[in-house]
Amino acid sequence: MFNRLRNHIEKRVHLTDEEFEIISGFFTLRKLRKKQFLLNEGEVCRHIGFVNSGCLRQYTIDNKAAEHIIQFAIEDWWISDLHSFLSGKPSTENIDALEDSEVLLLEKSARDELLDTCPKLEKFFRILIEANLVATQQRIVDSISTSAEERYLNFIKTYPKIFEQVPQNQIASYLGITPQSLSRIRKELTQK
Amino acid sequence: MFNRLRNHIEKRVHLTDEEFEIISGFFTLRKLRKKQFLLNEGEVCRHIGFVNSGCLRQYTIDNKAAEHIIQFAIEDWWISDLHSFLSGKPSTENIDALEDSEVLLLEKSARDELLDTCPKLEKFFRILIEANLVATQQRIVDSISTSAEERYLNFIKTYPKIFEQVPQNQIASYLGITPQSLSRIRKELTQK
Repeated sequence: MFNRLRNHIEKRVHLTDEEFEIISGFFTLRKLRKKQFLLNEGEVCRHIGFVNSGCLRQYTIDNKAAEHIIQFAIEDWWISDLHSFLSGKPSTENIDALEDSEVLLLEKSARDELLDTCPKLEKFFRILIEANLVATQQRIVDSISTSAEERYLNFIKTYPKIFEQVPQNQIASYLGITPQSLSRIRKELTQK
Repeated sequence: MFNRLRNHIEKRVHLTDEEFEIISGFFTLRKLRKKQFLLNEGEVCRHIGFVNSGCLRQYTIDNKAAEHIIQFAIEDWWISDLHSFLSGKPSTENIDALEDSEVLLLEKSARDELLDTCPKLEKFFRILIEANLVATQQRIVDSISTSAEERYLNFIKTYPKIFEQVPQNQIASYLGITPQSLSRIRKELTQK
């Protein structure tokens, strides 16, 4: 159950068996069926989740009831509303499963204790979050300076596994365009 | 020279005088005159910078020679192209001073050594980067789900000091709208 998590952490910091034994004790397994929620708007996001299998999405719903996808997470990815997790304030986001999924959850108090118990994980989370920040900043650069077609091609290049796993209408929402616009872009690309 | 940096770090982790003495030894001061560059597109971003005074901006230039502002940084903020800094690859971004500024620079190798020497700074950078990630994620949520007027009002509310310090045409670029659109929004807001 914890092999994937151990490999994932050991890509950034080396762990002894004893250390990983302690770390894994802080996580709990949550199984989600397709369309089941990990977080509902209005709840406090009490944990960060490591995706062991499956695929989840994180999204907001605007005043006109339109969904806007913030992030997908497939295996080896983390998912949470970090703002709500860190501040303890109710979330404005939703997280649900796009397919049957397994998520290893780490609660806020457990993470705080884990970071005190195993300082190596400070390094691990610092490296993980830096990489996430780089990707998030790149998405902003893309959103303000590239066309929808370029953003679509960048998405395929950057996240080939997510592209294969996630329905096209969900990808359109992530890119901030309508499914119709995405269909047009795909048609134009095949004609090039 | 280092008072501001010390206060900034001590908001997240407590330091002894000896620890801060070691930390400050890793930083170098760079003074920039208005319009002077800290980073040019095509160079590797070799340092992260803590703004001691003044105001800088980070931006890209697209194929049509239009500038797109990624971030402003006033005193107590950090600025760098994190992707280039971490990967050692040439940057696609520019950083210059909007007014005379003082920046405390921490080179990549110095930061690596500092993190090994003073593990408390792992915690400091983890907390700092988490907060930055939360703000960056919020900007994405805003960019895909709110109107230009809402983004403008959010900007004023979230960054009141930057709003006072930075010219309106620069804020328009940050918001991904034309200066004309921003003028219209400002006019409409005063009429409400």
